[in-house]
Amino acid sequence: MKTSARNAGILFLESALEVDSAVTPSATILSWFEGRRRAHRFRLEPISFNDMVKWGFDPRTGNLCHESRRFFSIEGLRVKTNWGQVPEWEQPIIVQPEIGLLGFITKRFNGVLHFLVQAKMEPGNVNMIQLSPTLQATRSNFSRVHQGRAPLYLEQFTDRRHGRVLVDVLQSEQGARFLRKRNRNIIIETEQDLPVGEDYCWLTLGQLLRLLRHDNVVNMDARTVMSCISYALGPGASPEAVSSRFGQELWRSFQSFAAGRSSNEEIISWFTEQKFAYDLDVERIPLGTVREWVRTDTEIRHETGRYFSVIACRVEADNREVSAWTQPMVKAHQRGLIAFVVKDFDGVLHILVQAKVEPGNFDVVEMAPSVQCITGSYENEGPDQLPPFVHYVLNARPDQIRFDTLQSEEGGRFFREENRNMIVEAGPDFPRELPSNYIWMTAGQLKEFIKYNNFVNVQARCLLSSLSFIEMDK
Amino acid sequence: MKTSARNAGILFLESALEVDSAVTPSATILSWFEGRRRAHRFRLEPISFNDMVKWGFDPRTGNLCHESRRFFSIEGLRVKTNWGQVPEWEQPIIVQPEIGLLGFITKRFNGVLHFLVQAKMEPGNVNMIQLSPTLQATRSNFSRVHQGRAPLYLEQFTDRRHGRVLVDVLQSEQGARFLRKRNRNIIIETEQDLPVGEDYCWLTLGQLLRLLRHDNVVNMDARTVMSCISYALGPGASPEAVSSRFGQELWRSFQSFAAGRSSNEEIISWFTEQKFAYDLDVERIPLGTVREWVRTDTEIRHETGRYFSVIACRVEADNREVSAWTQPMVKAHQRGLIAFVVKDFDGVLHILVQAKVEPGNFDVVEMAPSVQCITGSYENEGPDQLPPFVHYVLNARPDQIRFDTLQSEEGGRFFREENRNMIVEAGPDFPRELPSNYIWMTAGQLKEFIKYNNFVNVQARCLLSSLSFIEMDK
Repeated sequence: MKTSARNAGILFLESALEVDSAVTPSATILSWFEGRRRAHRFRLEPISFNDMVKWGFDPRTGNLCHESRRFFSIEGLRVKTNWGQVPEWEQPIIVQPEIGLLGFITKRFNGVLHFLVQAKMEPGNVNMIQLSPTLQATRSNFSRVHQGRAPLYLEQFTDRRHGRVLVDVLQSEQGARFLRKRNRNIIIETEQDLPVGEDYCWLTLGQLLRLLRHDNVVNMDARTVMSCISYALGPGASPEAVSSRFGQELWRSFQSFAAGRSSNEEIISWFTEQKFAYDLDVERIPLGTVREWVRTDTEIRHETGRYFSVIACRVEADNREVSAWTQPMVKAHQRGLIAFVVKDFDGVLHILVQAKVEPGNFDVVEMAPSVQCITGSYENEGPDQLPPFVHYVLNARPDQIRFDTLQSEEGGRFFREENRNMIVEAGPDFPRELPSNYIWMTAGQLKEFIKYNNFVNVQARCLLSSLSFIEMDK
Repeated sequence: MKTSARNAGILFLESALEVDSAVTPSATILSWFEGRRRAHRFRLEPISFNDMVKWGFDPRTGNLCHESRRFFSIEGLRVKTNWGQVPEWEQPIIVQPEIGLLGFITKRFNGVLHFLVQAKMEPGNVNMIQLSPTLQATRSNFSRVHQGRAPLYLEQFTDRRHGRVLVDVLQSEQGARFLRKRNRNIIIETEQDLPVGEDYCWLTLGQLLRLLRHDNVVNMDARTVMSCISYALGPGASPEAVSSRFGQELWRSFQSFAAGRSSNEEIISWFTEQKFAYDLDVERIPLGTVREWVRTDTEIRHETGRYFSVIACRVEADNREVSAWTQPMVKAHQRGLIAFVVKDFDGVLHILVQAKVEPGNFDVVEMAPSVQCITGSYENEGPDQLPPFVHYVLNARPDQIRFDTLQSEEGGRFFREENRNMIVEAGPDFPRELPSNYIWMTAGQLKEFIKYNNFVNVQARCLLSSLSFIEMDK
């Protein structure tokens, strides 16, 4: 059951270098994926809150809850902080205290690690189906609260005699929407012969990284688990094919775990300073009392129509544990922008990381992308009114843009929410002086902080998973 | 202002190897310390709650608060957990949301790093005065809420142009008594000539480690900051003098950062499993409603007289920012036992670490000593009723006991609370199979987890600071 980290890192690197596979030829993936979409019947429709089944507003608090009081609930949050421009506000928040589990089963074919990927329907997904980890489960799934079928492959994770653990860490979700929600991100390797369900297929890491360059194909849960992977050099695993300047800088960045422009200790000191400087005081309050938010028959929205709203949906699906249900969802009102600014220092690519306060954060600040904002909010504002570096990213020349796709947020809670994900290489014109809550880090350093939990937010993790030294070697 | 971790580690090792100093000869330390005690006038007396000044019970909640609503308060906590024998209880808890600052100023004399140590009075201290960091401050001190004098040397920490940072991390306090309280543990190095106040002196790390072998001399705040120190080998800094088997095993343990019997990744996976398995659901409730606790004129105590009580005290002191005040304190009813079981595996000393749930923990479980319990609670019970390894530790042969002193908890909140701190070497009779929430780690691995915050509890950190490969080399 045991493995050394170095072994896992070598396996991951070898798998990342394989962009095709005899097990599932790359040429067949997208047609298989389309086939899965056509094979299933899905239906999603917004309904009024009154038409929800087993969900309702608690008469005392106005919280939106399941009758079992399990799964999740929509409650109110009062936030006070000295970070940013708004010192105090109230908002709805998703409360889901249970730790979820996001897990890939992997297995070696011809010596190369393959990931068992699921074409999974989630009600809020753009395009309904996206590629997801082998298992997405809550502890409610484990205890079968909803009395449906047990998820496939669950026993591979609960009975660990089946495999060895390659990755196993606890990570956060969106701090603007969830109150301290966390997931266990786990990758196990099995030597068993597993039956492969019709919605599943085996892909190399290289194939997954290539699919990430398509809009809305690889879901958020898969991206966050992939972000927890680190690479190690081993015999037979060397990125010799990487030849471009950018590819080499990026590869060296992945190999710089302990030091870049700042040592890990200096980054920890910078992060400690941020936590010492910024207050985040959150208080759970009844949803019915949240100021400036109004509830209609069909939505809970901000008076101004900005930010997001909470809606109710009816879902029908033929391939889920339960075939029809209703649930609340969160609907964003504007598309967001999530971007890394990256820059070469002494031949090693560095990523500009922001310490960002979000109300649901487990520990005040997390390491966030260089830019993480709702662009729609700033449409009528000049460059000076924008958050730092938004103007720079949106005005980058085409040759500076290394990655630019639309990616979805988690489809189990978010209604067709997609954000523009960008990686932009900074030119010599990029400012040398940074605001005090920004710092340059290597990809390897970010991986190291991901390993130790509660440091890197989900947007930064997912974007990091898109930084592929193979795909960007051009 | 910058330093590399390796540089700091070399400086710390060199300082740890110096057990005497021309700046403050070791022979003079204890007499200076006694002199400081005699030079000051202190008085502490328990009073009734009614006689407190500026402190009182909130009429609505029964919480015990300062009129400014700053500093700290005593509130109620309802705890539900599936860890341990008691699934649900209520208790008073200290709420102090502000992050405190515990800082040493260091400076090189003749090339050797010296720590500016303060002989500081805290009302709850056993013996009133103990050696403490250069600065213990809350953010209330910074903002001067109590309108007293500013603490000495404060500006060295607030204006960082004065020195460079050697250590700067966020750490927890006692999870059984504090709700998610944390302190910034910081060590800076200055090149300035600082005036040395009469209650201060410069000591090497080696001198501090030797003083730790005395009962109740080095306070908890100093011990936790010392625990954040890691050593690195450098030219001129090598523990050649270490010659005993145990000393060498311990030195190798400090140098094993990334792997021992388990890799760091395996330890993280074990820790993730603990957090996934154990629930900790805490809810702040009004102190006035806490069940099974009774309030008299002079104390809030459990119906059975066990655990602890909250009392009120009047304090007079001539060398504090404010010369007289009243405050609540927490008084333990039994002495505790805090112990590491240590054992050689392949020539490297390993420490038995426990994943322990405590209600005030920031994140469900923390890494705790092999044994951390109130021994008085078990006086009438047989070995089978004791928590794991208590019987083993209390029945160790003298040659197995490597450390055995009484150390105080933080004297600003705790009334003369001291715990027996032990380090016991396991013999071949020690069980090979461990309960699932125990694991063997090296000292270097514990240091690595301390570096990344929120992993190691204060009892384990303080005990780790007592593990000296110089003092134990015999």
